[in-house]
Amino acid sequence: LAAQRVAVRPEEIRRHNLSQLLRSIHQHGELTRADLTAAMGLNRSTIGALVSDLVALGLVTEYVPSGRDRAGRPSHVVAPRPDGPYVLAVEVAVERIVTAAVGLGGTVHDRRVTAIDNADRLPQAVAGQIVSDAAWLADRLPGSQGAVGVGVSIPGTVRRRDGFVEHAPNLNWRAVPFAALLAKRMPRHLDVQVGNDADLGAVAEHQRGAAIGYDNVVYLNGSVGVGGGIIAEGAQLHGAGGYAGEIGHMTVNPDGPPCHCGSTGCIETYIGEHALLRAAGVTDQHGPKVVAAVFAEAAAGDRRAVDAVHTVATWLGRCLANVVNCFNPQAIVVGGSLAEVVRLDRVSVEAELDRRAMAAARAGVQVLLPGLDEDSALIGAAELAFGNLLASPDEMVTSLAAT
Amino acid sequence: LAAQRVAVRPEEIRRHNLSQLLRSIHQHGELTRADLTAAMGLNRSTIGALVSDLVALGLVTEYVPSGRDRAGRPSHVVAPRPDGPYVLAVEVAVERIVTAAVGLGGTVHDRRVTAIDNADRLPQAVAGQIVSDAAWLADRLPGSQGAVGVGVSIPGTVRRRDGFVEHAPNLNWRAVPFAALLAKRMPRHLDVQVGNDADLGAVAEHQRGAAIGYDNVVYLNGSVGVGGGIIAEGAQLHGAGGYAGEIGHMTVNPDGPPCHCGSTGCIETYIGEHALLRAAGVTDQHGPKVVAAVFAEAAAGDRRAVDAVHTVATWLGRCLANVVNCFNPQAIVVGGSLAEVVRLDRVSVEAELDRRAMAAARAGVQVLLPGLDEDSALIGAAELAFGNLLASPDEMVTSLAAT
Repeated sequence: LAAQRVAVRPEEIRRHNLSQLLRSIHQHGELTRADLTAAMGLNRSTIGALVSDLVALGLVTEYVPSGRDRAGRPSHVVAPRPDGPYVLAVEVAVERIVTAAVGLGGTVHDRRVTAIDNADRLPQAVAGQIVSDAAWLADRLPGSQGAVGVGVSIPGTVRRRDGFVEHAPNLNWRAVPFAALLAKRMPRHLDVQVGNDADLGAVAEHQRGAAIGYDNVVYLNGSVGVGGGIIAEGAQLHGAGGYAGEIGHMTVNPDGPPCHCGSTGCIETYIGEHALLRAAGVTDQHGPKVVAAVFAEAAAGDRRAVDAVHTVATWLGRCLANVVNCFNPQAIVVGGSLAEVVRLDRVSVEAELDRRAMAAARAGVQVLLPGLDEDSALIGAAELAFGNLLASPDEMVTSLAAT
Repeated sequence: LAAQRVAVRPEEIRRHNLSQLLRSIHQHGELTRADLTAAMGLNRSTIGALVSDLVALGLVTEYVPSGRDRAGRPSHVVAPRPDGPYVLAVEVAVERIVTAAVGLGGTVHDRRVTAIDNADRLPQAVAGQIVSDAAWLADRLPGSQGAVGVGVSIPGTVRRRDGFVEHAPNLNWRAVPFAALLAKRMPRHLDVQVGNDADLGAVAEHQRGAAIGYDNVVYLNGSVGVGGGIIAEGAQLHGAGGYAGEIGHMTVNPDGPPCHCGSTGCIETYIGEHALLRAAGVTDQHGPKVVAAVFAEAAAGDRRAVDAVHTVATWLGRCLANVVNCFNPQAIVVGGSLAEVVRLDRVSVEAELDRRAMAAARAGVQVLLPGLDEDSALIGAAELAFGNLLASPDEMVTSLAAT
């Protein structure tokens, strides 16, 4: 039996509304009181009181827009306070760590990018870098109210419950309790949340990127590894443990090449960057610059590079057809270096979709490029970190003031 | 901005609670007032009033259990009225049409099974058969309050919005507005809902079958065709148009055999019944009896049949590994003739899962046989048909009384 609540206390209603109001402002960047009144179905005085609460908490500010030529009293604009609290959003990728201070409304106040190599990829070294970046960012934002949470994107399988990284093959991590490990080293007992890069990218592209307004979205992130994040009916699809969306490890040919995951013929072995380089005849180098060079050659018409991109695009289309058949999304956002494959050879991608996806689902799907460019996972990590503040703004601010 | 409601009128609370109470009784078959009080978090007098309302609507009955040896006053048991309203649940399969009268609590009061062949599979003929079965069932349930809705399971892609069948290859249907077509012929303007067989099977196995208590479930239904239904965090995953879960048409080898869907190397071409028969060397016959004969031979140790089952089991394991990687379910229920493949050669299925599914997700999944045997889709069709009554019991009963 599903338990249910019937009585709702006035204080709970206020908290719920405060949370909803802050979510609206966070999502839209800024809104007039009139917008908020219309959208939330509350009267003007209730909205006024809630906005005052958020102002008192130091989270938002109000201003009267100037230069309006419409008649009548202009509606006040409610916006995040530029010096309000921020979150630390971290993207741990194979070649770099990006740490950013992101404010309400999704504004990236500042960021630090550090290139990393093998030794720097050890979990303790990554945590140390993040702690150092956090201090660097705090120095750059002296007037700010400080950080309220940390969100970290990892290219691997992450247990949702506690941010335990099961396996991040391209970082060479196995069974790393990264959320706990980083939380111990962060000052002020900041809450640390860890998520899979593609899952976070899906949230960000749905919330602020190319897939705004679609309820069913798949974000496919492909560079060295290939991962997926799913938005189903407006919410993230986690699966039982948080491992849903491992699209890169769908078997598309049981007799195909070995994959680092232990299987063979995973789609990652056909569309990951190593496959592209192999097809282009590059066997002795790897990394973003080498991949970019292949794309540049393909754009310039070099036969071997064009063929390599075509091969990857064809397999990508097969991958997307499987995605369409499984999830029936309205939009698939293709990010990472696979975005460049779509740019260079969309025709081959779409042809395989036409051929292999069920007609009704195929007719309803668009293949999109990311709206947030390289920042999908980073912005998604910020959204993850903002979760607590958005859920209970007053409790969060009170508990921060106490530390 | 997501709209939200704040004020809740007392009448809305009563309606909501009436609906929740009826859902509980429907799901569990019968419950004591004490169970209901505990589970719904309402006081005894409120539960008493709500139960009285459902009694007055003719939906439930109360009785005092006899033979209790516990001390104290026994709690009244609330149960669906055996002569209460029922729904017509219909399973249209390739070889047969099953129409059943199903009461609240999921009780199948009576059913009629009709074998069908090519001509009988025309949409008008199928609708005619259902109308005739409905009348036959009504005659057999003379004291009942009659049918309150119709749910139909179709082995094909169904547009969720209006029950339009896009493509049911094994019925040879394309673009058939079956819900509208059947509704026109049903007496008393009964509401007709149409769903995909595997989607409905998933709902039924989750609600009343092998997957009770799991929040993330995949039901894979395989006979001539192969389809899937997904339960994610307790709710059905529909996708944008209702086409999610077309697992049978995942490409698992682009160079594989042609599939009726227009693609090649769909998993259906490796695990559908035609593949089993081909592997067993049966090329001139088909149908359930021929398939059953191959299974009987395999069970008896016939080399060729054993090998055929092994081949299908291996491909089935690959299919399930893809399912685990995409959806991270706790349970996969394998139904249709594929259930027999699991019974005969589970080792091969699980071996491919071990090899190809991501470790963390693999560790958390069980492969189960259906709890409802052949009736998963039929019971799911009943659940679909009960939707309106469960959502607003009083409105529904009132509108029926008016017709």
